[in-house]
Amino acid sequence: MAAVADAAGVSVPTVSKVLNRRGDVAPETRLRIEALLAESGYSRPKRRHRPAGVMDLVFTEFSAWAMEIIRGAQEAALAEGIRLAVSATPSERDEERWMRSLVRGKTDGVILVLTSLSREHRETLASLDVPIVIVDPDGQPDPTTPSIGAANWAGGLTATEHLVSLGHQRIGTITGRPSVLCSQARLAGYRAALEHAGLPYDTEIVAYGDFHYESALKAASDMLKLPNPPTAIFAASDVQAMGVYEAARQHRINIPENLSVVGFDDVPMAQWASPPLTTLHQPLAEMASLALRTLLHGDGGLFNNRVELSTSLVVRESTASPSRRHA
Amino acid sequence: MAAVADAAGVSVPTVSKVLNRRGDVAPETRLRIEALLAESGYSRPKRRHRPAGVMDLVFTEFSAWAMEIIRGAQEAALAEGIRLAVSATPSERDEERWMRSLVRGKTDGVILVLTSLSREHRETLASLDVPIVIVDPDGQPDPTTPSIGAANWAGGLTATEHLVSLGHQRIGTITGRPSVLCSQARLAGYRAALEHAGLPYDTEIVAYGDFHYESALKAASDMLKLPNPPTAIFAASDVQAMGVYEAARQHRINIPENLSVVGFDDVPMAQWASPPLTTLHQPLAEMASLALRTLLHGDGGLFNNRVELSTSLVVRESTASPSRRHA
Repeated sequence: MAAVADAAGVSVPTVSKVLNRRGDVAPETRLRIEALLAESGYSRPKRRHRPAGVMDLVFTEFSAWAMEIIRGAQEAALAEGIRLAVSATPSERDEERWMRSLVRGKTDGVILVLTSLSREHRETLASLDVPIVIVDPDGQPDPTTPSIGAANWAGGLTATEHLVSLGHQRIGTITGRPSVLCSQARLAGYRAALEHAGLPYDTEIVAYGDFHYESALKAASDMLKLPNPPTAIFAASDVQAMGVYEAARQHRINIPENLSVVGFDDVPMAQWASPPLTTLHQPLAEMASLALRTLLHGDGGLFNNRVELSTSLVVRESTASPSRRHA
Repeated sequence: MAAVADAAGVSVPTVSKVLNRRGDVAPETRLRIEALLAESGYSRPKRRHRPAGVMDLVFTEFSAWAMEIIRGAQEAALAEGIRLAVSATPSERDEERWMRSLVRGKTDGVILVLTSLSREHRETLASLDVPIVIVDPDGQPDPTTPSIGAANWAGGLTATEHLVSLGHQRIGTITGRPSVLCSQARLAGYRAALEHAGLPYDTEIVAYGDFHYESALKAASDMLKLPNPPTAIFAASDVQAMGVYEAARQHRINIPENLSVVGFDDVPMAQWASPPLTTLHQPLAEMASLALRTLLHGDGGLFNNRVELSTSLVVRESTASPSRRHA
């Protein structure tokens, strides 16, 4: 290790970090060290522990789509003969408690969902030789850890193109929190579809929500009060789409006759909305299943990489041609 | 054991079943044997295993309210310093796989949600000295195992009384599958409220659904087509209430102006419905939390018993006075 550190011009702890697949090492440095390690004939030690038969799935909080992630990971776990421990750690104290239960109880791997562990906890997992994969529907990957997400830009494009193809020319959007990358990606997809159709991008009908119901209800209400309101709204989550539904009801506007609505996620609730919601299906269960299988079958091609699964449009009854408003 | 068996007039395996708190023993026989065991000064052996630090939560399938059960059990687990393994075993093969992963991985206890294990699997758990508690929102307890449910009859009564108090005189209901006890309990509560108010019980506006959306959509559509349709419908689950919403939309009937709707469960979706759904809050998270703590802290007062937690009415915007239909 000292020789490799000398050759690479880095410290021994940096070589150790690369060996243990930990963060805090620039990609080029990591590649240089990996190459030197390979040259030196060094092979990583095998995992030190016998399998615990349990993998951990950790959320910051249980959101509307958490059930789909659990479903996918659990089906994969059952098929692999292991069990799936599920946790939510909304506070630092919860994260600390979870980490203690993990150290005591052993795990074969950890799937983090929209959770970023403290440096201390990352180092604890590294010292226990516990691999991590991030499942990340919101598009904020930590580049030092393998992550699995969805194609958000393409989803925003597809949603908006669907509305354009129905004949809508005044299409609003309510995206998510601006600090979250997927919000920007979905918004950029929306904008690209408008540009491609030769439609103007009008900030009066572009709003940022926070993925929750109340913010979308408020934003949609404001849009529907405009002198020239949109005939269609693309909401960047199904929960936000429910806020648009409620704003429409309060304004006595019928969906889809007078307003088309497209959501994002395709959680089970989308099919029970009235009318059933047209939405972008995010393959949450598949993302979770892939994460679990990646952890279990080792650090193959996916590690130090990011994978994005594609979304698909599910047309239900909340979208129609704008001409129907005069029907 | 042989002496106790002789004195009780039963076989040695029956005494063993009572010792191991297993089923298949009539309550009177069980009591007689327990009394003889106590007289004989016999004390049960202590648990044989050190804690695994993991408890298991098992569903037949992940329903609309599974997330609330997971949330409650997980919060309790985190507070107790253990992890929660979550499984769904829709098929016998899945149950077999789950049981194998459990035997291999160890568990401190099992919470079954609407799942009845095969006799073979029950015996396996008993031989491993793994305690079981049933969480049972649907009211079908196995009398040989401790179970935690909700007060379904009182919930049906409260839902219907709420509609009566608003002035409704023609109140329909869509309950769950007739084979499930909670369906009968909620229906009986509905009927009691009608009787108490001096209103007739009319089978034309009483339907059995299957707790799913489609069945309620169909049943509500049929009711709304009647020459004398109901002005209010009590649906025995929130998902069924969503079916009533869609039937109303298809008939161009506004909620709550022309139809009041009450649900049951209070899953998160209820607050996002348009209009937000008035419903009976079922304390799913509390039921799960109680189950976990019961397992962890041993076979105290709850074991060989059933506990029912109370439901509470959450009034949102889907219910109003029927006079508003002429407003």
